[in-house]
Amino acid sequence: MIVTVAATQFACSTDSSKNVETAERLVRDAAAQGANIVLLQELFGGQYFPQTESYEYFGLAAEAEGHPVLAHMAALAKELGVVLPVSFFERAGTVHFNSLMMIDADGSMLGIYRKTHIPDDPGYYEKFYFTPGDTGFRVWNTKFGKIGIGICWDQWFPETARILALSGAELILYPTAIGTCAVPESQLDSDPADHVHWQNVMLGHAAANMVPVVASNRIGTERCESAGTAIRFWGASFISDQTGRKVCEAGHSEQEILTHSFDLDELRDFRIEGCCFRDRRPELYGRLLTLDGKNRFGG
Amino acid sequence: MIVTVAATQFACSTDSSKNVETAERLVRDAAAQGANIVLLQELFGGQYFPQTESYEYFGLAAEAEGHPVLAHMAALAKELGVVLPVSFFERAGTVHFNSLMMIDADGSMLGIYRKTHIPDDPGYYEKFYFTPGDTGFRVWNTKFGKIGIGICWDQWFPETARILALSGAELILYPTAIGTCAVPESQLDSDPADHVHWQNVMLGHAAANMVPVVASNRIGTERCESAGTAIRFWGASFISDQTGRKVCEAGHSEQEILTHSFDLDELRDFRIEGCCFRDRRPELYGRLLTLDGKNRFGG
Repeated sequence: MIVTVAATQFACSTDSSKNVETAERLVRDAAAQGANIVLLQELFGGQYFPQTESYEYFGLAAEAEGHPVLAHMAALAKELGVVLPVSFFERAGTVHFNSLMMIDADGSMLGIYRKTHIPDDPGYYEKFYFTPGDTGFRVWNTKFGKIGIGICWDQWFPETARILALSGAELILYPTAIGTCAVPESQLDSDPADHVHWQNVMLGHAAANMVPVVASNRIGTERCESAGTAIRFWGASFISDQTGRKVCEAGHSEQEILTHSFDLDELRDFRIEGCCFRDRRPELYGRLLTLDGKNRFGG
Repeated sequence: MIVTVAATQFACSTDSSKNVETAERLVRDAAAQGANIVLLQELFGGQYFPQTESYEYFGLAAEAEGHPVLAHMAALAKELGVVLPVSFFERAGTVHFNSLMMIDADGSMLGIYRKTHIPDDPGYYEKFYFTPGDTGFRVWNTKFGKIGIGICWDQWFPETARILALSGAELILYPTAIGTCAVPESQLDSDPADHVHWQNVMLGHAAANMVPVVASNRIGTERCESAGTAIRFWGASFISDQTGRKVCEAGHSEQEILTHSFDLDELRDFRIEGCCFRDRRPELYGRLLTLDGKNRFGG
């Protein structure tokens, strides 16, 4: 089966309905370009609120059931016949998650993944908002292949990609919101050297697991007046083949759609003939279940 | 502490003493260039015998204790004051390993690592010769930093690099023997696209673990008359920084020495400030101890 995947990127405004409108237009354009799977960026419904810690932003979250944006995107996925993973700020009773609903090409909601690894750096105060996810890593059997998802910070962890690959992922997708957070703002224009590191990590996941990787990152500069900071998002969304070669890459500031086609049967043969999975030795990997190579969790 | 690491590559002949002589000359030259740690390629004592399965080659193995090449290299390490990991074919009673002795800068032998992941592909019949290693992954506290080792095929496994990093490795070194194995020989000259994949995997390990990676691979074409095959080794030895950026790379056919200096204290700060290790969630990584995402080893 040959599938075409699309990565998209755009600048988010403070107007949620306008963001959803932009996302919808990109999905329609990607589908018109032949995409079967369209990846939107992380939390595209609004600006990146974790730039500061403010209780009011908990009000942006909503339960998955009856969520208006999810319902809208499910109808869109069905109309266009595309697989559409949708990132959203999930309320679950009294806790909140950085979540993603996997929507299949017939509009059915296959289930939720809750971001496992939660960052906390100056300008990325996610630990204030999001409880670390409890779903574990998920791979969904969609109309267009078995798809595994990591959300943003998850992309830095080889464990995420490896578990998705072991669980049968034929494609790994990362919706993301990453850039340079700085005061003074003049530093925002410095060369985003970190974006190379960020890409290299994911190219490595693709190469080591022999699975294509797709990343969608937002663009634009978002200011937070209360904190006196701003983030310039890197863009640089990309698609990697199964050897860690970037097959397409977006710029740092333009709204863009990238597409690439993969033959999933050829990829499966590639992984089998690569023989790496055959030779793993889980009985020697116990230290992966530790934090410092010594203390051990139950697993 | 600033340390200078060297990667070397050369073509192996059928004359073992000549190979050891070449290795010694490269180590001396690297030390003269300021190297504190010199990486020689995998099994540099001879041509790559696993190109075919032949009982006679078990005769090439020797016990670590009293091994003449190890003793020679230990004396060299002491004389030059360099850390010298030495790959050798180890006999241990009735089993054999693809092993490495870590020799510290004072000539002391710190211990053995036995290759964990053993390949078996046409032209790389290592499962015939080498029992999968039983040492687990090892990091040695040498005079010039904490050094972790993977041997060749180990380099394809993110588990190897991650466990070494969790165990405190400040540098990860991979002695290697990889190339294109082909009949007819004319195919040996085809573009070694796989060498890019091979590098990408290790660049990813460096980026994800925020640890420099050094790989030494052999060069030259080695013919195996009994099998009617030949391997053209890729060379392309390289050094990666902690972001997955190649800082130097050798060609495909020349004997070479690469050197690069790293500040181990700066690297430690980089890893702490990267914050990825802080946010790992071992309680969700149990599937890493499975082969197919389902059946589980004890760990």
